Amino acid sequence: MKTGEDKLIQRIAKAAAVKSGRQLTLGIGDDAALVIPRAGFQTILTCDWFLESSHFLRDKHPPESIGWKCLARAISDVAAMGGAPTHFLLSLAIPETHTGPWLDRFLRGLARAARRFHCQLAGGDTTRSDKILINITVVGEIRDDRAVPRSGAKPGDLIYVSGRLGEAELGLRSFLQSRSASPRDSLSVRKHLYPEPRLALGQWLAGKRLATSMMDLSDGLSSDLPRLCAASRVGARIITSKLPKVKFAGEKDPKDLDLTEMALNGGDDYELLFTVRPSQARRFPANFQGVPLNCIGEITRRQRLLLLEPGGREETLSAGGWDPFRNRR
Amino acid sequence: MKTGEDKLIQRIAKAAAVKSGRQLTLGIGDDAALVIPRAGFQTILTCDWFLESSHFLRDKHPPESIGWKCLARAISDVAAMGGAPTHFLLSLAIPETHTGPWLDRFLRGLARAARRFHCQLAGGDTTRSDKILINITVVGEIRDDRAVPRSGAKPGDLIYVSGRLGEAELGLRSFLQSRSASPRDSLSVRKHLYPEPRLALGQWLAGKRLATSMMDLSDGLSSDLPRLCAASRVGARIITSKLPKVKFAGEKDPKDLDLTEMALNGGDDYELLFTVRPSQARRFPANFQGVPLNCIGEITRRQRLLLLEPGGREETLSAGGWDPFRNRR
Repeated sequence: MKTGEDKLIQRIAKAAAVKSGRQLTLGIGDDAALVIPRAGFQTILTCDWFLESSHFLRDKHPPESIGWKCLARAISDVAAMGGAPTHFLLSLAIPETHTGPWLDRFLRGLARAARRFHCQLAGGDTTRSDKILINITVVGEIRDDRAVPRSGAKPGDLIYVSGRLGEAELGLRSFLQSRSASPRDSLSVRKHLYPEPRLALGQWLAGKRLATSMMDLSDGLSSDLPRLCAASRVGARIITSKLPKVKFAGEKDPKDLDLTEMALNGGDDYELLFTVRPSQARRFPANFQGVPLNCIGEITRRQRLLLLEPGGREETLSAGGWDPFRNRR
Repeated sequence: MKTGEDKLIQRIAKAAAVKSGRQLTLGIGDDAALVIPRAGFQTILTCDWFLESSHFLRDKHPPESIGWKCLARAISDVAAMGGAPTHFLLSLAIPETHTGPWLDRFLRGLARAARRFHCQLAGGDTTRSDKILINITVVGEIRDDRAVPRSGAKPGDLIYVSGRLGEAELGLRSFLQSRSASPRDSLSVRKHLYPEPRLALGQWLAGKRLATSMMDLSDGLSSDLPRLCAASRVGARIITSKLPKVKFAGEKDPKDLDLTEMALNGGDDYELLFTVRPSQARRFPANFQGVPLNCIGEITRRQRLLLLEPGGREETLSAGGWDPFRNRR
């Protein structure tokens, strides 16, 4: 009586330990999921592609990492609003050759991320495809009037980023040179394989109304900052020397890497980019729960994006991050 | 300053006439969308793949139909709960060759469906891909405790379907034989290209508490009925002669088509399958707003699926509808 697709859905539901309850009154296996929204909260909606060849390599990336990362990067958009994820939908299209151990390992990574970020699988859609195609919709919530959009930056606001920029790009390069993932992977390789969306930081910034605008860094600062500035109709001046570049703990700093270029253009960091009013920036902490917070420049009235180089030279910042319709990987 | 992806997102937002307002406080262009849920309503969540080669043919199907159908079929899952769609997210991956006129025509069909079904574009994700990949998430709402799941059918309940079954399958066959879509397309071809989810019917059945269980027919009755029965832990007896088969208005009934087989196994009809208590079935209308409603059998305690053939012979119903992990198209 059970068909192939139905069996697959049951395996997914089991691996992700899907239970109805709390806000979820009807979960996986029906036509749609039913969620009870909380009074006083708005619903956050976001979705993300995660595609073989574009976003990961089928024969290189561990299935656990693919499962973790597809959810973590979608959740990063909820972190960027200052919200908390509650549910997600998994759309999975895979070849028949990948419905066995590959799927088990993928679901293990996905379930680990779901538990880690308190985000429950509510439904989805499965089908067959020659390539591995993943699409994740994340539903989140945030208290009324607390969400931080991209559009709130004002001239004079200071620009902050969390973490170190270019770390995931360095991790990607090391990973592609390595034979396979291993427990001895460096921090940067782990950041490439298992990124951690900055949920606690985003919620703190939104909850305390500390950020005037916010977004997550997924394509790279040089591509993402222009988006925040365009939404806010402002410009920005970034001080190159203040960019939190990759640190090489114990290892020797490789001479052939341009760490500034990586901080500007490296994608996949999932750090938060946000702006803070000057009055609040004066007593702004240097880190939050161990994550460094660095002021890298300021918002300007003139709608240009400038880089202040050491020595005082000003350059125009040009988008050099990831753009699927421009880049070829 | 604008990158390729950003321009694409602006074109999509413009074509779909995306405005914030009403429930949508933050729409396309930010990290995520923000929706204010209505008090006393639950949120319905569903998503659907719509992939080149599996679900449509790039060089054969009109882009307007692809745009309409990807949204209509996802909305059908909201109709199947008895709810009303409110917002959707569009995940679109296309080759660069399709970012011109093809995209304009696709968006025209999508926008037409969005207006028709009062479902507003709230966000999404775009990327490049060799094949055209579409994933749609639909968010809907339904009054608390009114949603009709698959799991409520009881022995003795009567089984109903809306419309005529196999019509879209017939339309698919005619369409594949034709040179291209034309205004003179038959009803069945139009049903294949531009399906209409049964929103008003679903809302009426749920609002008046007339259906004990409900789902939409997307893969075909023989594949979908077992899912409803499994969820309700019941069986069913279908009377073959009562199946609402395709009618050929004015045309001669082609002798080489097995209309019963098409009614049982044809996919893509997006009609509603639902069960009704015997006490309410007695005065059940024969149609709703012009859509025929036919009783095709009854729910049984014994968990088997039987077909009662003319002459009284009973056969076991076997799933012959669409299953991506079994069928090859």
